[in-house]
Amino acid sequence: MIQVGIIGGGGYTAGELLRILLHHPETEIVFVHSNSQQGKLISDVHQDLIGETWLTFTNTLTTDIDVLFLCQGHGQSVKFLEQNDIPDEVTIVDLSRDYRLGEEFIYGLPELNKPDIQQSKRIANPGCFATAIQLGLLPLAKTHEIKDEVHIHAVTGSTGAGQSPVPTTHFSWRSNNLSIYKPFVHQHLDEIKRSLTQLQPGFDQALNFIPVRGNFSRGIFASLYMNTELNVEQLHDLYHEFYANQPFVLLSQQNPNLKQVVNTNKCVLHVDKHGDKVLIISMIDNLVKGASGQAVQNMNLTQGLEETAGLNLKAIAF
Amino acid sequence: MIQVGIIGGGGYTAGELLRILLHHPETEIVFVHSNSQQGKLISDVHQDLIGETWLTFTNTLTTDIDVLFLCQGHGQSVKFLEQNDIPDEVTIVDLSRDYRLGEEFIYGLPELNKPDIQQSKRIANPGCFATAIQLGLLPLAKTHEIKDEVHIHAVTGSTGAGQSPVPTTHFSWRSNNLSIYKPFVHQHLDEIKRSLTQLQPGFDQALNFIPVRGNFSRGIFASLYMNTELNVEQLHDLYHEFYANQPFVLLSQQNPNLKQVVNTNKCVLHVDKHGDKVLIISMIDNLVKGASGQAVQNMNLTQGLEETAGLNLKAIAF
Amino acid sequence: MIQVGIIGGGGYTAGELLRILLHHPETEIVFVHSNSQQGKLISDVHQDLIGETWLTFTNTLTTDIDVLFLCQGHGQSVKFLEQNDIPDEVTIVDLSRDYRLGEEFIYGLPELNKPDIQQSKRIANPGCFATAIQLGLLPLAKTHEIKDEVHIHAVTGSTGAGQSPVPTTHFSWRSNNLSIYKPFVHQHLDEIKRSLTQLQPGFDQALNFIPVRGNFSRGIFASLYMNTELNVEQLHDLYHEFYANQPFVLLSQQNPNLKQVVNTNKCVLHVDKHGDKVLIISMIDNLVKGASGQAVQNMNLTQGLEETAGLNLKAIAF
Amino acid sequence: MIQVGIIGGGGYTAGELLRILLHHPETEIVFVHSNSQQGKLISDVHQDLIGETWLTFTNTLTTDIDVLFLCQGHGQSVKFLEQNDIPDEVTIVDLSRDYRLGEEFIYGLPELNKPDIQQSKRIANPGCFATAIQLGLLPLAKTHEIKDEVHIHAVTGSTGAGQSPVPTTHFSWRSNNLSIYKPFVHQHLDEIKRSLTQLQPGFDQALNFIPVRGNFSRGIFASLYMNTELNVEQLHDLYHEFYANQPFVLLSQQNPNLKQVVNTNKCVLHVDKHGDKVLIISMIDNLVKGASGQAVQNMNLTQGLEETAGLNLKAIAF
Repeated sequence: MIQVGIIGGGGYTAGELLRILLHHPETEIVFVHSNSQQGKLISDVHQDLIGETWLTFTNTLTTDIDVLFLCQGHGQSVKFLEQNDIPDEVTIVDLSRDYRLGEEFIYGLPELNKPDIQQSKRIANPGCFATAIQLGLLPLAKTHEIKDEVHIHAVTGSTGAGQSPVPTTHFSWRSNNLSIYKPFVHQHLDEIKRSLTQLQPGFDQALNFIPVRGNFSRGIFASLYMNTELNVEQLHDLYHEFYANQPFVLLSQQNPNLKQVVNTNKCVLHVDKHGDKVLIISMIDNLVKGASGQAVQNMNLTQGLEETAGLNLKAIAF
Repeated sequence: MIQVGIIGGGGYTAGELLRILLHHPETEIVFVHSNSQQGKLISDVHQDLIGETWLTFTNTLTTDIDVLFLCQGHGQSVKFLEQNDIPDEVTIVDLSRDYRLGEEFIYGLPELNKPDIQQSKRIANPGCFATAIQLGLLPLAKTHEIKDEVHIHAVTGSTGAGQSPVPTTHFSWRSNNLSIYKPFVHQHLDEIKRSLTQLQPGFDQALNFIPVRGNFSRGIFASLYMNTELNVEQLHDLYHEFYANQPFVLLSQQNPNLKQVVNTNKCVLHVDKHGDKVLIISMIDNLVKGASGQAVQNMNLTQGLEETAGLNLKAIAF
Repeated sequence: MIQVGIIGGGGYTAGELLRILLHHPETEIVFVHSNSQQGKLISDVHQDLIGETWLTFTNTLTTDIDVLFLCQGHGQSVKFLEQNDIPDEVTIVDLSRDYRLGEEFIYGLPELNKPDIQQSKRIANPGCFATAIQLGLLPLAKTHEIKDEVHIHAVTGSTGAGQSPVPTTHFSWRSNNLSIYKPFVHQHLDEIKRSLTQLQPGFDQALNFIPVRGNFSRGIFASLYMNTELNVEQLHDLYHEFYANQPFVLLSQQNPNLKQVVNTNKCVLHVDKHGDKVLIISMIDNLVKGASGQAVQNMNLTQGLEETAGLNLKAIAF
Repeated sequence: MIQVGIIGGGGYTAGELLRILLHHPETEIVFVHSNSQQGKLISDVHQDLIGETWLTFTNTLTTDIDVLFLCQGHGQSVKFLEQNDIPDEVTIVDLSRDYRLGEEFIYGLPELNKPDIQQSKRIANPGCFATAIQLGLLPLAKTHEIKDEVHIHAVTGSTGAGQSPVPTTHFSWRSNNLSIYKPFVHQHLDEIKRSLTQLQPGFDQALNFIPVRGNFSRGIFASLYMNTELNVEQLHDLYHEFYANQPFVLLSQQNPNLKQVVNTNKCVLHVDKHGDKVLIISMIDNLVKGASGQAVQNMNLTQGLEETAGLNLKAIAF
């Protein structure tokens, strides 16, 4: 059994990680660290876990583990690793953005870097928007077919904004509402561009990205389009080939809808040609494939487990 | 024109009051007081008021007005009136619960106390749950027909919890969720009992009240039932008679639904007999008839205006 | 008082029209025609109208009116006018798309065609998406500044899909969901292009339009961007000038959110420059400014009333 | 591997059954029967199953199976079994209400009838409201402690109303709305009374049940209260004892909320004393513990599998 520790256990991504790991056939949770919740039952904080665990949050640390998940806020992972000496043989999966752009950690998008992830013990888990957008574009980058600017519009659920209540996550404000934030300058663009450049050297097309706050809890619904000379058959071939061995990326022939992926580790893509443009719809659950599910997928790869272990999750569907 | 001032202008009930008063044919807003928002455009804080007013929040006070609305939190109205000398001739409508149970202010439920309200310059605006529940029971109390315990279940929108973001108003938590709070002991029971006793002296039946947090922004949906020997015709007669001259209380023959009243000052009641029991469904918008709309109704009555002035509001319907 | 008749009274847009007209200070509703609801109380079908009217639906027609609103489905207005002889002096406002592209009716977008509307008795009320998108682009077209393709993404509420229950309006499917329909080919593009060409002769830029089904009942939230050499001051000047005398179009300096406009006849626009691109956010309530509110605005203009008469509607805000 | 067939494969409960069975470690789906969807890919109808199965719907039947699930509408199971000869050795789990009140099938509430279910090949799966309400009351009935009338209020998600779009499941109507239906006379009362009588012979207390249509897709949130002389310790002991060996019924010390159980087979109960009354909150997912999850639980019991096999489902939580 893989021995697992979790840092930052009280937040959304840690809760989601626990929901998955408690039923993972190959893992054992050694500790769940939290300064704010220390001593409490985990199921008193993540209340849906009632009946699934009698673990409590701890504020002490052991390194006698195989995998350590860092689930604190952005900036906290760097601090944590400065203050704590984690042995080299312990695999670290960092869910913050602290190590996504550097060279110390492997960027943990399995559909891009699977062989490197399998060999690595330091994984930077991608951002949620970044995951949805990259999975929509990687096949085009692989074949150097991003030859024009890309137009991206993506709506995210409220869990993407984290656990601290703020005005834009107040139910009275957010229900039945929509709003844009950080248009053209969202911080995830950096990691997206780096990945595209990895596959398509010299990539320098504009990524025009409009992020939107949606009135639902879970999910990212992204549409992406650009001019292309590829026809629809070429496009379908290219996507099918790229994702042939990627168990969580599914190509839908039907017009898709977000709830197909909510509560799963899937990314569903729909690719079609409209005039001169290819339109790609890319959908994930921001807390699963966009965070904790992908972290488990990365753990599976680093530990030599089946990639899908513990990740056959029932969709909410309704 | 009635000259109006508002204290506590940055909160939900003040915003709602402004939405109504800005189109009221007989009022002029003299000032909107707010310590936290002082100097800002009102339409920069209550953003839906864009284009309707160029007023700014002030932190100074003038008493050269006809009506003063107190929209601060509970406990703040007492403090405010201790610290500020409001002339007797200025009508005060207090939206907090500070004066609902005392003798200094008239309890401002027009369907109960209209003649007194018309003569008064100190009005304590009722609570939202209290409004919905009392309007469901007053006709029975009037005829001394509450002869058994009453079973009350009421679901409230998130705006009832106020503007400060807290865990139970976080969108990620509240959407698609339900939960009970303060079962059998909600603080509004006191004002309800006082009103029932006013009509039915010696009233001492139990009011079993289960308040529920609903996953919608606006509205209160209450069901009330009790044993009664009255038959359905007697019940309908009793309710029709009691509300004959009350423009905002409507008796529905059809099975009602909450959105009939959302964004209006209406209370829709549906009364039916099931076996030995009368079932009353009572529905209001907690911010309108349950707060600011009722405050305007009280203002209208105290100022000798048409009771419905400024209160013919379009329902949201969908 | 303006005498009004309504055809197709049982549907969403007729219900919304009634909600507005019943409180309009200058109109009297003479009849509400409906084949399917004939004989029923209007408030038994549009249940939120309880207490506001005792009118019933009729299946007979009188032409002794000033204004006739056609609220039937697309294709039905042509049939109706073939089968019924409406005198020339009766103003017709058609809410279907039957006459939007022809020459017989004036296209009833007041911000584009106000002088013609004021002189006309045949008005084709614009589509909801078309209204939001045109109001976002008209100032640029007026100055012939649409010099590149435009990227448009717009999310609509479920009321846009009409009253008949279908799979994509089933609550179990639509709640918490998003999906795209008719990408790049939505039928409203025709009326949009016609209007842009009216202001910018020879207009032939691509309008790349992604329509999205949103999980809310009311509202259209549109984002539009394109390359422009205009700087932000020039853009603001241009929009302020174009809308200086348009009471329902408001320019927001703040980042806007959809609920600012829900239940109102407003269109709120936010215009900003990002790099080489202008981003315009345009928001309306699809049933009000996108349908019945605009129809009343057109009625007001044709009848020589104040343009805003009956249209100072309280926003839902929450 | 248990060989499984499904009748009525296109509906909600069949879809949910497939979501569970496709990842059940001990089952193999032999056929999914549907007259309306025959020939289509299952994942084209239940779209979230993309990537999980290449099965298609069939309109032919084989009886070479271990378990047959009947997922058609109420009344259809009787017809099906009249028209089709299912061998005695095939276990039938009927999700309709056709056999719940007769003697031919065992009433499949495991927490009531586990030994009988384990010995039976004909199981009538309980109703969703009935499950939530019974699980709230069984421990009291077991000790003959239901000595007064019970007050029950329960809100259900829209999936309880089935797949056919009707006015009360139209998103435009149902979102942000609440309404009551069948007060005091809901059809599930019969099966509830029968179970209570089974444990408390001669049971004849009134069950005052107010069912409510909620504005969410999944879940039942029920509150139940009655007078009792038991104190809170006695109540807790009684519930803990009754559910000691029932893996899916959890007793929460905290005030619970519906999303703890959504997408799981759990029933979370909270029991507390308020004055003379015991208040029980009982929550399930209507499609899982209230339908298809419980059907799988029954299958597990009849086939000698672990009761929880395939039912450790990740909660949606948000």
